[in-house]
Amino acid sequence: MVKNDNDVYKKVLEKGLEQREVIEKTVKKIYDENKIDNIFFVGCGGSLAVMLPCKYIFDELSAITTNVYNASEFVNLKPRTFTKNSLVIVSSYSGKTPETVEVAKLAKEKGAPTIGFMGKVDSPLGEAVDFVFANQAETGVTDSKIIMLYQIIFNILKLRGEFDDYDGFMKALESLPENLVKVKETVEERAADWAQKNKDEEYFMVLGSGICYGEAYAQAICIFEEMQWIHAQPINAGEYFHGSFEIVREDTNIIILKGQDLSRPLAERAETFSKKYSNKVTVLDTKEYDMPGVDEKFRGYFSPLICSAVLDRYSKNIADVRNHPLSTRKYMGIVEY
Amino acid sequence: MVKNDNDVYKKVLEKGLEQREVIEKTVKKIYDENKIDNIFFVGCGGSLAVMLPCKYIFDELSAITTNVYNASEFVNLKPRTFTKNSLVIVSSYSGKTPETVEVAKLAKEKGAPTIGFMGKVDSPLGEAVDFVFANQAETGVTDSKIIMLYQIIFNILKLRGEFDDYDGFMKALESLPENLVKVKETVEERAADWAQKNKDEEYFMVLGSGICYGEAYAQAICIFEEMQWIHAQPINAGEYFHGSFEIVREDTNIIILKGQDLSRPLAERAETFSKKYSNKVTVLDTKEYDMPGVDEKFRGYFSPLICSAVLDRYSKNIADVRNHPLSTRKYMGIVEY
Repeated sequence: MVKNDNDVYKKVLEKGLEQREVIEKTVKKIYDENKIDNIFFVGCGGSLAVMLPCKYIFDELSAITTNVYNASEFVNLKPRTFTKNSLVIVSSYSGKTPETVEVAKLAKEKGAPTIGFMGKVDSPLGEAVDFVFANQAETGVTDSKIIMLYQIIFNILKLRGEFDDYDGFMKALESLPENLVKVKETVEERAADWAQKNKDEEYFMVLGSGICYGEAYAQAICIFEEMQWIHAQPINAGEYFHGSFEIVREDTNIIILKGQDLSRPLAERAETFSKKYSNKVTVLDTKEYDMPGVDEKFRGYFSPLICSAVLDRYSKNIADVRNHPLSTRKYMGIVEY
Repeated sequence: MVKNDNDVYKKVLEKGLEQREVIEKTVKKIYDENKIDNIFFVGCGGSLAVMLPCKYIFDELSAITTNVYNASEFVNLKPRTFTKNSLVIVSSYSGKTPETVEVAKLAKEKGAPTIGFMGKVDSPLGEAVDFVFANQAETGVTDSKIIMLYQIIFNILKLRGEFDDYDGFMKALESLPENLVKVKETVEERAADWAQKNKDEEYFMVLGSGICYGEAYAQAICIFEEMQWIHAQPINAGEYFHGSFEIVREDTNIIILKGQDLSRPLAERAETFSKKYSNKVTVLDTKEYDMPGVDEKFRGYFSPLICSAVLDRYSKNIADVRNHPLSTRKYMGIVEY
């Protein structure tokens, strides 16, 4: 079992929460000074995936239109609905992703307000956006980013009069550093077993739906493919039955993320089918984890955070037994492309 | 080389074009009787993929917001921006996909106008929508659906005053049956060679961007996975460099769709990288194909149609040499799920 880094992880989450007051002021300032017609979440890879739950939450709760784009697509297409009345939220862990920096510059030219999430403020993206949030994190990046993003978006929902328990939700958010560390502790053994069993696998299907699809996407393309060089395919659990399920055989390795959001029936349906036809199904059910202090009605929103905490342990364990550090790269940041 | 079905194919495309007058009346009626705030394109698998170019076109040309959802996701989430002022466009080849029929019913309850595309009018989806377009096709389904969808959406753009060469575009559409048959004839030999060379491959990456991403998605999950039981992963060419490209080796089989829309630089960048590190790259460049009667400015919109015509020949040839008919299924329509 690989050593955990729960102390550092907890501190990074707490750092995300500490931004609350600044975030409240930032959102208020943006809304005081602008008429916001729509919101664009733009990034690449893992930094894109982390914003997908935000779109889900707006879809569920808000009458404002939100859009998620890969930064290159956005920069080339320049959607016509992107105007000076758009709020543009961008994210890049390094703060250096050129196409994401380009998005912030485009927004500035257009006169649209920008918020950026990154590792370090002192970066090209940090300089290009109006408001910057950085977590300086070496680990727990995803979860701390989601916490900061949630503080932003629930502030927007509150300002728009579309969410009536802001204080309750913020209190629930505060429970996360402790709760998510407990989630990680709970899965330690299971993650080590899973890694041992799966260390020689050459392909994974990673299924998710609704608020958890972003986690499935990131686990497949960022962890398995980028960081472990294992083929992995992210699949929306609702789309599964319209293509990919035809290749399932008894030795197909399938990971299913089962959140507590409105899309749960999609994951359940995928689980029932997969378990019938494959012997290698891993289900990550967020329902299994205690979250004291988190009201039932908020659990759906916290599903990606639970998935991320659990998958982080799975990922670090499999990297360890495969002797392939998560930081190893063949091309990224090494060759020209 | 497998026999082509160009005669039937051409007739199906012509049938799509014949709907022009009805489509013009339908769109006018919908806009006369409703205030349309946004448009939802909803479907599953290939029927979802076929609508992705429509979102791209609206993104480029229109100030109206459009959304694309998997039908299960839509039905469970019921996005808050979906109201009686939404136009809902649904598609299902069989007309029987339960989750898509459910979308049409939800829209009816809500009082939102619905347009449905399907194989046969006489189907549950045909009964559930307000306006129905069917192509009765056994083949060439994708292209004829795109032709019908384009007639719908360019009518909407015209009504909204966002497209000033409607007549020119309709004339260009009329050239498609002949032009696309020629495209198919041009690739006959190349498709047969490709199929022979690739018949034993066990994995494909299929890259696309912008208006062609839907084609990449459909080729991977519907053709390779569903119809050929070969692992295949659809990848947005802009996302490629933020995950999946790390698994590229010299024997990785990569198909790149290169359209003539605004996202072309994304495909070019993916091509340059892929050719440097893999010996098995197939590039489908829509620019290579003559399209007499189609003005340069419309070629971007026709890129998915060229991709679809070319890939159809590739798919039928590989099915033939693998002795695995495209109609063979293990689960779809056979077992309960």
